[in-house]
Amino acid sequence: MQRIGIVDLGSNTARLVVYAYEPGRWFRLDDEIRELVRLGEGMGTGRRLSPAAVERAAVALKLYADYARTVGLDRLEVLATSALRDAENGGELLDRIRPLGLDLRILSGQDEAALGVSAVANGFILDDAWVVDVGGGSAQLSRMRGREFADGRAYPLGTVRLTEAHLRTDPPRGGEVKALERTVEDHLGEAADAMARDPAPLVAMGGTIRNLARLVVKTSAYPLARLHGYFLRREDLERTVNRLLGLPLARRLRLPGIHPDRADVLLAGALLYRWLLRRTGQEGVWISGYGLREGAFFRHFLPPPHRIEHLRGFSVRNLFERFPQPTFHVEQVRRLARRLFEELAPIHGLGDDEKELLDDAARLHDIGMAVGYYNHHKHGSYLIERTHLLHGFSHREQALLMLLVRYHRKGTPRWGLLRALARPGDKKLLLRLAVCLRLAEYLERSHSGNVDDVHARIGDQDVVLGIETGEDSAIELWETRKQAPLFELAFGRRLVLEPTRRGRAGVSPAAS
Amino acid sequence: MQRIGIVDLGSNTARLVVYAYEPGRWFRLDDEIRELVRLGEGMGTGRRLSPAAVERAAVALKLYADYARTVGLDRLEVLATSALRDAENGGELLDRIRPLGLDLRILSGQDEAALGVSAVANGFILDDAWVVDVGGGSAQLSRMRGREFADGRAYPLGTVRLTEAHLRTDPPRGGEVKALERTVEDHLGEAADAMARDPAPLVAMGGTIRNLARLVVKTSAYPLARLHGYFLRREDLERTVNRLLGLPLARRLRLPGIHPDRADVLLAGALLYRWLLRRTGQEGVWISGYGLREGAFFRHFLPPPHRIEHLRGFSVRNLFERFPQPTFHVEQVRRLARRLFEELAPIHGLGDDEKELLDDAARLHDIGMAVGYYNHHKHGSYLIERTHLLHGFSHREQALLMLLVRYHRKGTPRWGLLRALARPGDKKLLLRLAVCLRLAEYLERSHSGNVDDVHARIGDQDVVLGIETGEDSAIELWETRKQAPLFELAFGRRLVLEPTRRGRAGVSPAAS
Repeated sequence: MQRIGIVDLGSNTARLVVYAYEPGRWFRLDDEIRELVRLGEGMGTGRRLSPAAVERAAVALKLYADYARTVGLDRLEVLATSALRDAENGGELLDRIRPLGLDLRILSGQDEAALGVSAVANGFILDDAWVVDVGGGSAQLSRMRGREFADGRAYPLGTVRLTEAHLRTDPPRGGEVKALERTVEDHLGEAADAMARDPAPLVAMGGTIRNLARLVVKTSAYPLARLHGYFLRREDLERTVNRLLGLPLARRLRLPGIHPDRADVLLAGALLYRWLLRRTGQEGVWISGYGLREGAFFRHFLPPPHRIEHLRGFSVRNLFERFPQPTFHVEQVRRLARRLFEELAPIHGLGDDEKELLDDAARLHDIGMAVGYYNHHKHGSYLIERTHLLHGFSHREQALLMLLVRYHRKGTPRWGLLRALARPGDKKLLLRLAVCLRLAEYLERSHSGNVDDVHARIGDQDVVLGIETGEDSAIELWETRKQAPLFELAFGRRLVLEPTRRGRAGVSPAAS
Repeated sequence: MQRIGIVDLGSNTARLVVYAYEPGRWFRLDDEIRELVRLGEGMGTGRRLSPAAVERAAVALKLYADYARTVGLDRLEVLATSALRDAENGGELLDRIRPLGLDLRILSGQDEAALGVSAVANGFILDDAWVVDVGGGSAQLSRMRGREFADGRAYPLGTVRLTEAHLRTDPPRGGEVKALERTVEDHLGEAADAMARDPAPLVAMGGTIRNLARLVVKTSAYPLARLHGYFLRREDLERTVNRLLGLPLARRLRLPGIHPDRADVLLAGALLYRWLLRRTGQEGVWISGYGLREGAFFRHFLPPPHRIEHLRGFSVRNLFERFPQPTFHVEQVRRLARRLFEELAPIHGLGDDEKELLDDAARLHDIGMAVGYYNHHKHGSYLIERTHLLHGFSHREQALLMLLVRYHRKGTPRWGLLRALARPGDKKLLLRLAVCLRLAEYLERSHSGNVDDVHARIGDQDVVLGIETGEDSAIELWETRKQAPLFELAFGRRLVLEPTRRGRAGVSPAAS
């Protein structure tokens, strides 16, 4: 196991994250320390770090260095972005911190943009995207193609900078907003034209967009407790911008979900995003919980090209490793669920995506046992919702995983509070996948691998499920039989179980 | 690690539980299989097991035996209660299952009553209690004194039996209810007199009382998701009985929280409990989630006298073992929280109970890290609420544990949804304990044991906290200082930190 600390020394905050990991195998976030450094303070109008800002940054970096030493991190990497990159007097800070012996890199605008692409490539199932990261000092815009960084750079359009340059009244006047938008247009106009010509999903990262999404989520009864993968629609952003524009800072600070360190500069970022969506005609923007630091982390975690090959499978394994359950039972349930899915293909009409989802749910079905036996199906669902390890799934797919785990033992599967995430036909889809997992679970009731295989003979009225078993499978048959009503609900056919002894496949003692 | 299966072959259900454990050290529930056997069917009016009931019980026991073999349990113990004890033809069942070679014990009424006391002694912090367990065939009533079984026996007053004997109309008529109550009076009248003469808390176990409590909880917005330790008040029971009496079975079955296997016989049990509370003048009854099987389990888990010595401490350790975190940090936080509590004694006015609770919270403060770093304070609170391992705490104390963990890093501690469990003064108490834990957490911010000790000089306006530290404690001081506003809220005094270097206690470089 290794532990690395990565510091993002931004224009607004300095943030240390600590990852524990085994290269290429698993990782987890172990700690995070955040300081409001405002290194870029005053750079909206000039190009010099203020003495106070240098002092604050030096203090924060000393703290991080002390922390790394006392905690015994294997490595500490400091990534400095636009404030230090653009300052004429960045050397003052570098001189101050030289005794700390830090591994500090001043990222170029392109470096920074490329790390954003690394975060998206390892956080989303997307081949192509436009990636935007609005920080305090600069904003990065990049094009990802085939999960690779194709092009990108930084623009002097960070929220602290834009606020200082344009939004001097509280709340800002219309003329100030227009001036800000003109500045954005001057810098990003061409890039926006390129985006409109070359459409791809827009993914945004950084504290500004997360905070904007949180404001929307808090007022919309969104059913999932996570932002990564959330799609912030343009109309919701427009509504939020209008709300922010009408409020003085003191009242913005009291909005539910707003980050107090960010309340003053959030509006500038919101205006930038509004401009971008209007200008490019994008319907909205995908929120990434990963950002610069994660992009940098993956360069340590994985050899070039620093990309997780099968993102969903990796995520599911990474989560499973957190709450390991006896592998034998889990593998049996996976195998049987897959076989049931295959055998029932003529009547479920589902495809490879659903098969993969069923397999992921089967792997995770018992993780709630870590909390306790009683209600472990509910605990498993909680863990799937709350983990930050599950990437590459849409929110609908995460909801399906939660529901399949939630209903793997009992109850009639229903979307309930998650129904806002369902698509037409998902009610039936949930039932059918849930039946496959439920039958697999009960065909493995005694955790002993008794059932070798299943075969379905599908009729108009019923499905005869041939079950190849070993000696002692009474408990499996007994429990599986109880699931007949659910099967009928899902498939409109009676379930008939036909046990056959191992080695005599096709010859059923019960039927002969 | 050992695994034992314990079967409770009751008059209504047969239930297998599987415990994994290391004797005396830890245990967890691994599995549970429940079958509606209704072995006592027909015994309300006669003394013979019906052929169908014998068949159902034999099938269930064969399943459990198969399960135990395929799963590889170290031991399977079958405990038979009133139906088999009281039947003239119990031998028919024993003959049927002889080939299974089961370790089956037919419990005497006194055995059964004593196991109930074993469950209460290991599930509650009580020295003395009246313990009642209403099953399908019989009801047990026992007296626990000094955590020992003092006296007790079984009465032929189980819910199946009482229902068959008296409640033949749906819903029952007034005369039927009266007749049932006369039967109860005939059997329990003397015992009820003894209870009135010798008062002690009444603790009840078994599916009947749990289901009654669940009906009340479901309609009362009770803030905790657990029944063990819930106090079911007489007026709530009276209300529930009245509701049940007015509904035919078909509508009782649809009540939220009712167990379908129990809906028909629940009313008889409810009438028995109503009679008991009215007759003895008890204000209500404590619900035990532990019952016969747990009582039996503790006889394997612990040497005589089969009692966990320090129930709270054991519970907390048992839970901690589930979600182990680096011991060094946890022990440091415990030590510092204790020292802060001691040093602040003149201004917090709290006693040994609160000190112990703080210590338990300190031990559990990071268990939510098992779910993930982000929001681990919230995950820890979830785990404390949902575990079935935490015994010996009142619901108020569990709420305090949840809240101390919930607020160990940030936020202003408040009771919120749990406020129904708070007593007068608990708002301040929560704040003060939370400050001790919060300061301890941040004095151990880098998980390195840097802070050796703390000393408080308490003034009218401020508290000077002397902090004995090692070399690199800048991060601790930096983070701890941020907690000054919370300290002031809790104690009405400013917090001043005064670091002193190790070995120079009392001499503060900052102050000198």
